Amino acid sequence: MIRQRPAARDDKKPSRTILLDAAARLMSERGTTDISLGDIAKQAQLNSALVKYYFGSKNGLLLACAQDVLGRSLEQMEGLVHMDLSPVEKLKLHIRGIINVYFRYPFINRLIHLLLRDPETARIVATTISQPLAETQRKLLEQGVESGLFKPVDPMHFYFILIGACDHLFFGQHTLRHAFDIDRIDDELRHSYTDTLLDLVLRGILNTSIAKEIP
Amino acid sequence: MIRQRPAARDDKKPSRTILLDAAARLMSERGTTDISLGDIAKQAQLNSALVKYYFGSKNGLLLACAQDVLGRSLEQMEGLVHMDLSPVEKLKLHIRGIINVYFRYPFINRLIHLLLRDPETARIVATTISQPLAETQRKLLEQGVESGLFKPVDPMHFYFILIGACDHLFFGQHTLRHAFDIDRIDDELRHSYTDTLLDLVLRGILNTSIAKEIP
Repeated sequence: MIRQRPAARDDKKPSRTILLDAAARLMSERGTTDISLGDIAKQAQLNSALVKYYFGSKNGLLLACAQDVLGRSLEQMEGLVHMDLSPVEKLKLHIRGIINVYFRYPFINRLIHLLLRDPETARIVATTISQPLAETQRKLLEQGVESGLFKPVDPMHFYFILIGACDHLFFGQHTLRHAFDIDRIDDELRHSYTDTLLDLVLRGILNTSIAKEIP
Repeated sequence: MIRQRPAARDDKKPSRTILLDAAARLMSERGTTDISLGDIAKQAQLNSALVKYYFGSKNGLLLACAQDVLGRSLEQMEGLVHMDLSPVEKLKLHIRGIINVYFRYPFINRLIHLLLRDPETARIVATTISQPLAETQRKLLEQGVESGLFKPVDPMHFYFILIGACDHLFFGQHTLRHAFDIDRIDDELRHSYTDTLLDLVLRGILNTSIAKEIP
């Protein structure tokens, strides 16, 4: 049973945050989401019963950890919708933003995959993370179409294509190593991959008369 | 320890095949890769010791199952390289082929994800599945560039973008359900998703003078 405790009491907030930070740090350092309650409690120097109190279970804590990391990024992305920028720039920033999150939090890819494997956490990830992200994307696409810059595209298809493309580079790190002989995703790869993806997506959805102006 | 037994003796082939078919059937029916050795043996009506004999372990059997299903498709895709078709048609058939495999074998998505989580099976998947697939793609892209139809694109980037886009629709079935209110990937969704992806990818890599001729 996952406990979605919406607002921790202020005087308790530090412990909750300490637990989330400890879990994130452990997953980053170990390169795996396979961490135990005991490890988290030890890293946080707190009693593991607090995990049950705040999050209901370890899965609840991992879910909260994903929501914590991605929530801020989701808000920033939502903010893009209201900015005074061209739809092309907004979509570029949106895509760069997604890749940067994967890059900045190396555990987030495996964590999301873990959460999407379990029907209960998958449902919560879908409604609290995927749905808002897809909604932001839908608005960005709509603005592009309204401005005459983008041709219409099914936002749901676009969601799976784009998130899949962003996700797979990070998910496929064994493939990267063994099929392409690349040991890690460094800054250069992140930038060149983003450029290829941006070019492909923009050429793909820009109206043809505009697309041909891209060098 | 995973045993990659290259060629089973002919008189033993049926048992090996029966075990692979049983595992595939169980994963299809149950919608999960979480099947036990006992379940597989029971379904196959064979002794579970045979799994150890042929595949070394359950993971070895699951790996062989993925290689069995994907091997035939990989060969067909490799065959495309040598066909007398335009590079555009070849790339379309290649992309349709990948999505069709995911659609035809509903367990293959989760199975590949499972195998990519373990470093040892991930290495074998990368070298026996990802690498040949990426090599075929590289050749298809090269033929497109040589013919003047495609602009150059980094084949490794293209690999992760394309496979990610194909994979994510099938991986994200909980997202599909809870964020988009769609219960299953039916024929219609498969076709419309493929069309959107083909359109995006082709516009993305076709030389601009050609891309503008796409309606």
